Amino acid sequence: MKQVGGIIPYLPTPVDDKGNIIEESVSALVSHLSDCGVSGICVLGSVGEFPYLLPEQKRALVNAAVKAGHASGLDVVAGVAGFSVRDLIEQSELYSSIGVDALVLMIEQYFPLSVKQLASMIIEVGNNIPDKEIILYSNPKYMHYSFPIELFENINECSNIDGYKDASGNTGFLLSIKERYGDRFRIFSASAHIPLFVFELGGVGWMAGPACIVPKSSVRLFELAKEGRLNEALALQRRMWAVNAAFAKYDLAACIKGVLNAQGYDFGNPVPPLEALPADTAMRLSELAASLEEGGMV
Amino acid sequence: MKQVGGIIPYLPTPVDDKGNIIEESVSALVSHLSDCGVSGICVLGSVGEFPYLLPEQKRALVNAAVKAGHASGLDVVAGVAGFSVRDLIEQSELYSSIGVDALVLMIEQYFPLSVKQLASMIIEVGNNIPDKEIILYSNPKYMHYSFPIELFENINECSNIDGYKDASGNTGFLLSIKERYGDRFRIFSASAHIPLFVFELGGVGWMAGPACIVPKSSVRLFELAKEGRLNEALALQRRMWAVNAAFAKYDLAACIKGVLNAQGYDFGNPVPPLEALPADTAMRLSELAASLEEGGMV
Amino acid sequence: MKQVGGIIPYLPTPVDDKGNIIEESVSALVSHLSDCGVSGICVLGSVGEFPYLLPEQKRALVNAAVKAGHASGLDVVAGVAGFSVRDLIEQSELYSSIGVDALVLMIEQYFPLSVKQLASMIIEVGNNIPDKEIILYSNPKYMHYSFPIELFENINECSNIDGYKDASGNTGFLLSIKERYGDRFRIFSASAHIPLFVFELGGVGWMAGPACIVPKSSVRLFELAKEGRLNEALALQRRMWAVNAAFAKYDLAACIKGVLNAQGYDFGNPVPPLEALPADTAMRLSELAASLEEGGMV
Amino acid sequence: MKQVGGIIPYLPTPVDDKGNIIEESVSALVSHLSDCGVSGICVLGSVGEFPYLLPEQKRALVNAAVKAGHASGLDVVAGVAGFSVRDLIEQSELYSSIGVDALVLMIEQYFPLSVKQLASMIIEVGNNIPDKEIILYSNPKYMHYSFPIELFENINECSNIDGYKDASGNTGFLLSIKERYGDRFRIFSASAHIPLFVFELGGVGWMAGPACIVPKSSVRLFELAKEGRLNEALALQRRMWAVNAAFAKYDLAACIKGVLNAQGYDFGNPVPPLEALPADTAMRLSELAASLEEGGMV
Repeated sequence: MKQVGGIIPYLPTPVDDKGNIIEESVSALVSHLSDCGVSGICVLGSVGEFPYLLPEQKRALVNAAVKAGHASGLDVVAGVAGFSVRDLIEQSELYSSIGVDALVLMIEQYFPLSVKQLASMIIEVGNNIPDKEIILYSNPKYMHYSFPIELFENINECSNIDGYKDASGNTGFLLSIKERYGDRFRIFSASAHIPLFVFELGGVGWMAGPACIVPKSSVRLFELAKEGRLNEALALQRRMWAVNAAFAKYDLAACIKGVLNAQGYDFGNPVPPLEALPADTAMRLSELAASLEEGGMV
Repeated sequence: MKQVGGIIPYLPTPVDDKGNIIEESVSALVSHLSDCGVSGICVLGSVGEFPYLLPEQKRALVNAAVKAGHASGLDVVAGVAGFSVRDLIEQSELYSSIGVDALVLMIEQYFPLSVKQLASMIIEVGNNIPDKEIILYSNPKYMHYSFPIELFENINECSNIDGYKDASGNTGFLLSIKERYGDRFRIFSASAHIPLFVFELGGVGWMAGPACIVPKSSVRLFELAKEGRLNEALALQRRMWAVNAAFAKYDLAACIKGVLNAQGYDFGNPVPPLEALPADTAMRLSELAASLEEGGMV
Repeated sequence: MKQVGGIIPYLPTPVDDKGNIIEESVSALVSHLSDCGVSGICVLGSVGEFPYLLPEQKRALVNAAVKAGHASGLDVVAGVAGFSVRDLIEQSELYSSIGVDALVLMIEQYFPLSVKQLASMIIEVGNNIPDKEIILYSNPKYMHYSFPIELFENINECSNIDGYKDASGNTGFLLSIKERYGDRFRIFSASAHIPLFVFELGGVGWMAGPACIVPKSSVRLFELAKEGRLNEALALQRRMWAVNAAFAKYDLAACIKGVLNAQGYDFGNPVPPLEALPADTAMRLSELAASLEEGGMV
Repeated sequence: MKQVGGIIPYLPTPVDDKGNIIEESVSALVSHLSDCGVSGICVLGSVGEFPYLLPEQKRALVNAAVKAGHASGLDVVAGVAGFSVRDLIEQSELYSSIGVDALVLMIEQYFPLSVKQLASMIIEVGNNIPDKEIILYSNPKYMHYSFPIELFENINECSNIDGYKDASGNTGFLLSIKERYGDRFRIFSASAHIPLFVFELGGVGWMAGPACIVPKSSVRLFELAKEGRLNEALALQRRMWAVNAAFAKYDLAACIKGVLNAQGYDFGNPVPPLEALPADTAMRLSELAASLEEGGMV
């Protein structure tokens, strides 16, 4: 089974006024990201505005991403979000048949689920897609729950459930997973994290929207951490935080789309009810990102 | 524009092992509820396990409910839940074309929305379905947000958005709406409430799962309140609470399905990951409901 | 053991610029409240700004309240708030020795306590003050926890712990207590509630700040409910809500002090960091209260 | 003005059966900690069970700590917790007069305070104790609020408010403070944090209970970080986490007291309602700490 890792930017979803996916924007951006050294791309995450996309839009996006990503030699990951086992499995099977290399599993809860219920859902999805790496996703801020550490014991049997991506900022929880389970679960940083710290804790990659606009710096940060050049990594991490701080004031998808549009890619506006970034803010963020990228390669 | 009111039981969704809607169970239950004096029925609420149903299952259920409900002279209401304006409108249009009399609007939030964003979504849905009554639904426990009272000012212009159903138990908020907006917004009680108190505050109806299994008592409670026979209503309300207390320990859908199955209707098991009620508990709850129904008519 | 009940206004704490309790203001207000028919008074609640008072201020206030209250034939209740058993007991013993008739127990939590820990604290306080009625207080909004219903089983053995005052607005929880424990625990309404509904559920009294400024209406509401004249009570309750709605926009203590000052009592400013009500708002609220009081006696 | 920094263990409060502070335990532990290289000690924090201590116990403890700390050449810090400005100032003045070198300010909220209200309280305390360094403390888990970043702008004028200790685990917030305010505010790690990461972000010290039982390792971690030997620091940090993981299952105060008692210091039992650690668990944790300390010096 293939395992993904390294810098994997989360792509926003380019949608035109009629609701169609703009495939050329996907391929143009993917080609650029590949030149900058990223390992893969991921679609249908928070940055990709997954909650606002219809099934046919999701399918078209995964198609475009697989085509563009594989053409550039990149791994392609897709997010799968849903409330019911059946829906999660159907989406996972569809995206696998299209050719994704791995899946990020986002279980949405309406009625609160017990650890046992969560574990049985996860295992059922894992067993139905046995040849793909599946990465669990936790985002307490938007999804209103956290995985208790016991969950990981309950899904241990399902070997292709082997990744965990965490947007909580709770670095202590990541270390607890490493201490308790060693390399059984591969840890990924998400946007809200300070990725260097996740790398220091043994993290294998960073899946995040900002890597779309500062890909070189992101790759450099990961390499420095891997090589144990922690002081240089820390200096770069501090500079990169300025981008995150700017983003914290706006919707993440609006930020990434705004900057990409300012850079000449056509990613359109955020899907309603999300609102577009003001043009001057987009330009300022774009310049901030460009300046970081230049410094990031020194 | 037709307005619904009175006792409107929330139906669970009868699904067989292959995932098909069991239409005969819908019609049998609806016929019984009609005999007991309810005003309407509602599908695709929390009791109906809406988060776990696929679009084609929802469509089939609405079809069955409209057919059975209108055959019995009952109003038919459907829940519409979703994250994006487009999805909400498409579902609303579909269910309207099938023939529902009113809609309950459940806006799911991933990224937290501002009052302005919520209001614009609601108005856009309302304007696209101008001839149907639309009832807003608030359920902080499962949906993780509440409507601030300012929201109602912002949607005042859209006259077919005229109902509000609240599962929060915050009776003071209901009174505030009545004080501020008079009869502009029609208030409905939900399961978690003490419906008599909502009726005392001017509530026009009760939409809830328990009314499936104690329909006569529910109708009686509403009538007593309407007639101002508050002392009798209060005595009945107290006895009815025993059912609620029993339900509080289990998933609501599991309870209603368990009791209905025990009464001879075939509603199947809850949709995974929800779990079925133990058979002996279902039998006990069924007897409790039956005993209440007998007393309720005295 | 004496049991308190009926309308028991929560007094704000009149403090002068030097931090001294203004005893004459206590006695003047208590005399007026007694004329209006209230059953008792309570000091050191939220309205009394208890978290901002020093031990010597609390002692002086309890002294003044006992003197004034008993002179007018009213019951006197004091709030006891603290984190440790020892502190709770010392305060309870002190206020009992001064002559209060009952205590409201407010357990503050820093480290979250288990039901077992809470119950053992409550029983230890109860056993140390065996001849006074002790009323438990729950205020999730300010104290960040709720009592689970199991707590009441665990404190059943301690007979002088016999009251429960709830500011949560969760009327269903009150009914559950009545259903499960009958008259073992006496229920009181707090400010945030719709007191009529608590009376309908068997509540024995209302302890709240607003009763300081609308005492006649409060007494009338309680009497109507007790006599089963629910329709009249409901009409009065609806009119009284306007006062609550006005209060919801400001600090409760600031409101009550502002209105009392406008009425000619000298209650001073709220204790910092709380801020005083603007003078024109105080005047407007005072007129609103006066108008309600006139209508309330019709 | 003196500024504290480095490793500053949070002392538990040794209380005998009569409620008296056991001064010899304070001096014995402080002497040992000094031999291990710590920079200072802090009393009256969460580990010190401050919410459960009476004013006279607090005073006796600060007395003992100042005497023992200064005799060993250590800085002495005391926590000041309270709801009102007046109480905070009185405690701060008292502890300053006894001789503490710095204060940790813990503002407890009952009524939620605005940024403006919080800032004015903080500045008033700071202005009244102008010659002592004051460190703000945030602990959302136990104190139910966080400081918004705007707070720091509002207290900028008060130069002796110059430290910030954060128990939230939100490392991104610490970086934001550093980016926005440079060295104006000195950052300290608290127990819940991964202190190495705080040091990497420019943190000047670690104030925490665990440093009482692994003081050598704590000092070593801080030195390695300061010298930029991040790889060695990281290896040590990972090993130290085992202690934290063990602690997470019990009350922190119970853990530290249990281990210290097992090591031969007499710190007594936790103050009720907190419960003592089982003796065998204390022994096991003591061995874990000892083993870490030996390895930590290699």
